[in-house]
Amino acid sequence: MASAHKDVELSQLNTCEKIPYDELLKNHNAKISHKIGDFVKRRLYILNWLPEYDRTKAIGDFISGVTIGLTMIPQSLAYANLANVPAIYGLYSAFMGSIVYIFLGTVKEVSIGPTSLMSIITVSYTYEKPIEYVFIMTFICGCVEMLMGVFKLGFLVDFISVPVVSAFSSSTAILVIVAQLKNLFGIKFKAKSLPLTIVRLAENINQIKIGDTALGLFAIAFLLSLKKLNELGTKSSNVKLKKFLFYFSLCRNALIVLITGFIAYTISASEMELPFKLSEEVPAGIPSFQLPSFTAKVANETVEFDEIVMDIGSGFILLPLVSILANVAIAKAFTSGKIVDATQEMIALGMCNVLGSFFKSIPTCGAFTRSAVSNQSGIQTPFAGIYSAIMALMALTLLTQYFNFIPKATLAAILICAVLSLIDIRIGSKLWNKSKIDFLSWIGCIIACIAAGVEVGLLVGVALSMINIFLKAARPNVVIYVDKKKDEQIIYVRPSEGIFFPGIDSLREKINITLIKTDYKYPVVLDLIKISSVDYTSLQGIESIIMDLNKHNLTVTFANVDEKIQRRLNLIK
Amino acid sequence: MASAHKDVELSQLNTCEKIPYDELLKNHNAKISHKIGDFVKRRLYILNWLPEYDRTKAIGDFISGVTIGLTMIPQSLAYANLANVPAIYGLYSAFMGSIVYIFLGTVKEVSIGPTSLMSIITVSYTYEKPIEYVFIMTFICGCVEMLMGVFKLGFLVDFISVPVVSAFSSSTAILVIVAQLKNLFGIKFKAKSLPLTIVRLAENINQIKIGDTALGLFAIAFLLSLKKLNELGTKSSNVKLKKFLFYFSLCRNALIVLITGFIAYTISASEMELPFKLSEEVPAGIPSFQLPSFTAKVANETVEFDEIVMDIGSGFILLPLVSILANVAIAKAFTSGKIVDATQEMIALGMCNVLGSFFKSIPTCGAFTRSAVSNQSGIQTPFAGIYSAIMALMALTLLTQYFNFIPKATLAAILICAVLSLIDIRIGSKLWNKSKIDFLSWIGCIIACIAAGVEVGLLVGVALSMINIFLKAARPNVVIYVDKKKDEQIIYVRPSEGIFFPGIDSLREKINITLIKTDYKYPVVLDLIKISSVDYTSLQGIESIIMDLNKHNLTVTFANVDEKIQRRLNLIK
Repeated sequence: MASAHKDVELSQLNTCEKIPYDELLKNHNAKISHKIGDFVKRRLYILNWLPEYDRTKAIGDFISGVTIGLTMIPQSLAYANLANVPAIYGLYSAFMGSIVYIFLGTVKEVSIGPTSLMSIITVSYTYEKPIEYVFIMTFICGCVEMLMGVFKLGFLVDFISVPVVSAFSSSTAILVIVAQLKNLFGIKFKAKSLPLTIVRLAENINQIKIGDTALGLFAIAFLLSLKKLNELGTKSSNVKLKKFLFYFSLCRNALIVLITGFIAYTISASEMELPFKLSEEVPAGIPSFQLPSFTAKVANETVEFDEIVMDIGSGFILLPLVSILANVAIAKAFTSGKIVDATQEMIALGMCNVLGSFFKSIPTCGAFTRSAVSNQSGIQTPFAGIYSAIMALMALTLLTQYFNFIPKATLAAILICAVLSLIDIRIGSKLWNKSKIDFLSWIGCIIACIAAGVEVGLLVGVALSMINIFLKAARPNVVIYVDKKKDEQIIYVRPSEGIFFPGIDSLREKINITLIKTDYKYPVVLDLIKISSVDYTSLQGIESIIMDLNKHNLTVTFANVDEKIQRRLNLIK
Repeated sequence: MASAHKDVELSQLNTCEKIPYDELLKNHNAKISHKIGDFVKRRLYILNWLPEYDRTKAIGDFISGVTIGLTMIPQSLAYANLANVPAIYGLYSAFMGSIVYIFLGTVKEVSIGPTSLMSIITVSYTYEKPIEYVFIMTFICGCVEMLMGVFKLGFLVDFISVPVVSAFSSSTAILVIVAQLKNLFGIKFKAKSLPLTIVRLAENINQIKIGDTALGLFAIAFLLSLKKLNELGTKSSNVKLKKFLFYFSLCRNALIVLITGFIAYTISASEMELPFKLSEEVPAGIPSFQLPSFTAKVANETVEFDEIVMDIGSGFILLPLVSILANVAIAKAFTSGKIVDATQEMIALGMCNVLGSFFKSIPTCGAFTRSAVSNQSGIQTPFAGIYSAIMALMALTLLTQYFNFIPKATLAAILICAVLSLIDIRIGSKLWNKSKIDFLSWIGCIIACIAAGVEVGLLVGVALSMINIFLKAARPNVVIYVDKKKDEQIIYVRPSEGIFFPGIDSLREKINITLIKTDYKYPVVLDLIKISSVDYTSLQGIESIIMDLNKHNLTVTFANVDEKIQRRLNLIK
């Protein structure tokens, strides 16, 4: 970063030959023309890369597709558990997300499937409800995502600031970890909120099972050391070792499932009593592809669709918003500089969920960890998804009978290790030093997430981060001083940034106080160099300022007025 | 307004001898010091003007006090009717507001008492509830007003823009007029909302009573022509005639009450059947001064305090906000340039309502019409209120037996004529020409007020007017062009106004599109001349922009960086 040329002069620049942005954009828009063929190509994005698909790309996609599959399958089982549905639904979700994104997705690195974020939001709306709630949520959220794409509402995620995103991820991770402690320790209880979970944990502290705990801690140690091993490997100069460690580390989730599952299988086969808990048994096979059921049964009574919609309520806005946020964040991280077609991404994500709901999928979105994996393992096109999908399908048909040998503590360990890296507390001190309001929105979001749930927390965070914008609008900085040296003494006033309705009265009051303090002796120079827009109320306020001064036979002189504002000021007279 | 000196140069100004605002303010704060004596003087504001009270001032106050009284008494009766309580409560309210404001008020022109705004908000929360609801509302709203004063929350009214204030007043006026049509036409029905009122009016159109209608239209004609007479009078050169017409016109409300009341009395005395409806009979005398009842009775069942509080709900925030808005607007209108102690005004208003509730007062605030009257009739100090209060007291003790001779149609006519001037439709076309967003907030507020009530309408208006600020923050204007003539070709970028978290991504995308369109050939000059603040997210965004360019071996040069921002930019590296 260079900060020389600090005194580049505007006037100098203005006289140069210029090509304005709008003209550049015209060419840009010309390229993405509005012909029907182009429209289809944009919406069925596979048509953009399929014609150029070749052997090299196919190899890259195969390697990364299988790699993602190995990460995705154990993660999916764990995230389904996190969402409080049987593990197998995680695989259904992984399958559909991978398939649909091949046809519609624009960012090759994105891997759609179950994620910790989606699971924790889902469970906060469907806890202790019939399982149909989950699929209805998937369906409607998919529709909302598509609609947000069609109506170009993706800009809404711009209102979620970096500190809020960070606080939200950290809190989610904390919630996941605390929620999984019971599985790690082999305790059984039900608790919806984090405070309640802690209370229940404390109450049941003497119920801790040595078997589950030992297995869980072993799994965590295994996962963390393999992760560390890869980090050490990247420093190595031996390329082959590096590559081996990378892939070995990537398989860590699959490995621990295999290892602990094998232990469980062996013990069961020897007809000894198992010292730890296993996952629930799951039905084999693939569900039929059909519209989700729009009613649910609770204790033999049918819950109608409208009641379910009322129950989930804000979830239908919050979950799509968060999923889009996650996808946009991933897209930005892996396509640095390139322009992401946000509309198409939202439509693709929405379609993944709508079609997913036909296949009993839990809500899905892009997963940051898997996207990083696909990036590192050399993905070429979204076609890589086909291999992950096939692996999920194989797991569903061939391996289901073994799924119930996966110990609960293993899945808990996978979840805990997956979200550990999301926790970022150091940002707190950075924010404290740089901006108190940003710190406030960060800490407020964390506290609200933990105390009242992620859905409330996110809203609190956004509201708090907006305070800054409101305060800036209500109390704009004003440079104001009495200038006494010149022949013509003046009161110099320079408001900074926009002068909108909440701030104009504060400007007027400051000018009036200055006038009173100087006994209405000096005229005012109002320097509008920092102002690019006004509204009706602020124009009225400027009129009042002029009238205030005219009453004392003083004038207001405007300096550095933007052309657009000049025109509106002329209307005052 | 002069817009010469457009090219006053900043650098020139900066080298001059300057007295900054903070230093001026120090003197200002020194004056309002924090000694206990000064504190008492600020809070018991009567101590500021009472020592200097003299005969001239007393005469001015007497004349204007009596004048206000003549306007206030009939208005109070009508506004009480509007609030759906017997007319006499209007007088109770007028009495307490006038008395308390003498001791605490700082703006002599302000006349506290029943107003159309307060009545219409009150009735929207207490419609068909027991009368105790109204006094509890007065009490709690008074407390909230005082608290808002103590915690300096008066700035909240800054978020209500001029178009929203205008829309709110116009809608209130329309609601008042439509609600009074039934009294004007002598029809009887109950309807809470405006659409329902119109339906009921249409249904009962054949019930229109000739007597009420004739009397009401006569009263309206009388009031409007007396108002017009005053307007004509002001053009006259004859000072005595002018003054006569002014006071004659001021008494128009009192006159029409007397005239139509006398007609009703005469007809009753002659034992003929009255061709129009009269007001309800009211008990004579003054209520005892006591805490309002905190429970209510509905059909022999007691409604507890907490239930009443729940019923009124948002009214406890909305009504105080609107009352403070009204008072601030009046204070600004009549003290142009002087600094209003908003805190003290809120405390005074709150005290008027709290003590008022002890005396069965409906919620009160400053009335714009009466304040204009007191200003025109030469008010000197808030002491003028004593005369209005005495007149209200006399009316309460001596005249109550005659109150039920006041025809309902007369009160309806007074209300209609009082609010007519609040309707301002012309502002609509002005807004349309100047700012579409302002127009949107104006029309949206009107529609919501009429369709869903003033409380919803105000919130809708505020929300809509905030859109502008949000949009400006999310999509800041950026001047961006490729500068090709100089030896060193650059991409020039100048964001306008603040760059906060919702807008930074849009800036980054514009720069990236420009880079793509120019094949990553030119470095970027980022001109921050219009920027005075950044937040954590926008700093991160600037960092990303630098990284985007560095990837292509290009640099970002910053121009015209504010000192404060420079320091924060340095932290990036």
